Amino acid sequence: MLRPGATIGILGGGQLARMLASAGARLGLLSHIYSPVADDPAFDVCASRTLAEFSDEDALAKFAAAVDVVTYEFENVPAATAAFLETRARVRPNPRVLALTQDRLTEKEFVRDLGIETAPFASVEDAGALARAVARVGRPSILKTRRFGYDGKGQIFLRDGADLAVTFRALGGAPCILEGFVPFAREVSVVAARGENGEFRAYDVCENVHEHHILAVTTAPAKISGETAEAAVAIAQRIADAADYVGVLAVEMFVVEGSAGEQLVVNEIAPRVHNSGHWTLDGAVTSQFEQHMRAVAGWPLGSTRRHGRVEMRNLIGADAEKWRDILNEDGASLHLYGKKEARPGRKMGHVTRVFPEDA
Amino acid sequence: MLRPGATIGILGGGQLARMLASAGARLGLLSHIYSPVADDPAFDVCASRTLAEFSDEDALAKFAAAVDVVTYEFENVPAATAAFLETRARVRPNPRVLALTQDRLTEKEFVRDLGIETAPFASVEDAGALARAVARVGRPSILKTRRFGYDGKGQIFLRDGADLAVTFRALGGAPCILEGFVPFAREVSVVAARGENGEFRAYDVCENVHEHHILAVTTAPAKISGETAEAAVAIAQRIADAADYVGVLAVEMFVVEGSAGEQLVVNEIAPRVHNSGHWTLDGAVTSQFEQHMRAVAGWPLGSTRRHGRVEMRNLIGADAEKWRDILNEDGASLHLYGKKEARPGRKMGHVTRVFPEDA
Repeated sequence: MLRPGATIGILGGGQLARMLASAGARLGLLSHIYSPVADDPAFDVCASRTLAEFSDEDALAKFAAAVDVVTYEFENVPAATAAFLETRARVRPNPRVLALTQDRLTEKEFVRDLGIETAPFASVEDAGALARAVARVGRPSILKTRRFGYDGKGQIFLRDGADLAVTFRALGGAPCILEGFVPFAREVSVVAARGENGEFRAYDVCENVHEHHILAVTTAPAKISGETAEAAVAIAQRIADAADYVGVLAVEMFVVEGSAGEQLVVNEIAPRVHNSGHWTLDGAVTSQFEQHMRAVAGWPLGSTRRHGRVEMRNLIGADAEKWRDILNEDGASLHLYGKKEARPGRKMGHVTRVFPEDA
Repeated sequence: MLRPGATIGILGGGQLARMLASAGARLGLLSHIYSPVADDPAFDVCASRTLAEFSDEDALAKFAAAVDVVTYEFENVPAATAAFLETRARVRPNPRVLALTQDRLTEKEFVRDLGIETAPFASVEDAGALARAVARVGRPSILKTRRFGYDGKGQIFLRDGADLAVTFRALGGAPCILEGFVPFAREVSVVAARGENGEFRAYDVCENVHEHHILAVTTAPAKISGETAEAAVAIAQRIADAADYVGVLAVEMFVVEGSAGEQLVVNEIAPRVHNSGHWTLDGAVTSQFEQHMRAVAGWPLGSTRRHGRVEMRNLIGADAEKWRDILNEDGASLHLYGKKEARPGRKMGHVTRVFPEDA
């Protein structure tokens, strides 16, 4: 258990690291940001900074020596970086979960092996394997690179009649996974935390709407039955326990409405704080960022109680220009990430609105 | 009206500056902290830093050139510093209010001249004047240095029979003010903000309990009648308007219960965010820190709506050692200011508890 005044090292300097550092400061924890990107927004709110590549072992060694625990804001921390740091510092969550979630195939296998429902999937190492995979998984389906995909990048929707060889080449010939399309009624996620001692606390299941493969709106609670919500949280806990996870994680799930009622299908695990948990900053007693810092510091987890019905809307690209209107709107909470350039598709901030529970 | 990405210069680097900087970051505003104290806690959460004396005109000139507006976390900014900065940068709130509130005598006169009730008072330039002041104001009364007093420092309670010459010498012979003791039923404060365009928003009046002259507990709302609460807010607005104030201010008042009901007596004006407004971080839609940053940026003010009945308790000196218990308490929100040394009487942090309104 760290003491206040301890230093949390954070790999990555984006908005998630920024909000983690701010949450840590509130608790008297110092943050040391490690990022190769000079104008990363987390550098503006932290006590110490390392501007270096993730492959720079001198910088990594100094970083490890300067902090009390290492955590990360993104799952694509290079395996070699994580392995190097692990010999020199406590890394939380443990890097095994990085290996697991960096590869869509091992992630899906891990979930399936826990007896949890996933979309049908098959490994695709080459164009020939794609034909066999399509035969097994069917269409429509989605071909995804196994590694480095996010926000819809590195994936192609496969309809009837699409040319398989062309499709495979379009993803650069990288190892892929074919996933059957799930005809979902809604997308939900469970944002939860597991502490050092196995303590587990989930926020209420929230519902997500994506636009152009990027999260647009999250509302909490999700419009699902209480039974389904309980099942979703139980799935997240099973995953966290199996990975011996410490910190906040998000499990994205599809809700399929069938004759037997609502059914849950796990889509993805994010081993970090998650965009669909941003509503907790204004809408819950403990934010997901504070919760993660508590967990990696070895501290008890905080209350996940909601303040009301909550809506979080991302400000993507030019949406950030709406800041004046949002500031003028009574009860809206504006968050801007301090990014210098509002490129299309770039997450610039978000706005949260909390409504009375019964409205 | 500043744009997100603008830089707010803050004079002082204590916990108030720290919480201002964090609130600004949430809105996409950068903070530049100016303080002569190397280990000041605000340095840990800001984008830019100047470590220099307030008399260092080179450093002040560079600071003024680097920021879009200057504000401050404490009212004892030297008059010369404020005057120097005002020729080079926008300073908000305007420094006239510093001159006004740095001197207890001019502050009391300002309030009295607005037709607002204060304790009876008299100026005391020397031991002889003290005898005349006592004859006018009576006893019990309190002799206070006109300048640089805080948290009970620089003041002596004057009972019947106390030796006046000894008492005056005990305060170093500095110019003083004698204030009649107000037999108050409770102490309350109005934390409010005034915007660039005169917009005014107050938080619900809160109630303060001091121990050893230091704020111990604030609860919101105060246990006063709706009529008294309205009158208290109106007093704060009259003061803010008269001072052409921009930013958050706090007005401390006594509530006296007489035959004619509750009566308000203004005790002190703090031209800054205030300890009795810390509850707004967890207990209101917009915190006082965000509100101040909005005001000095020329932005519209945010909602001051409370989330429930709120209690804020300061962690003074060794109280900070209670952090483990507080982390373990469901629903308690811990704030630690990152101060290295827990000296007796030093404000190390605070804890907020929000309860349902009707409880």
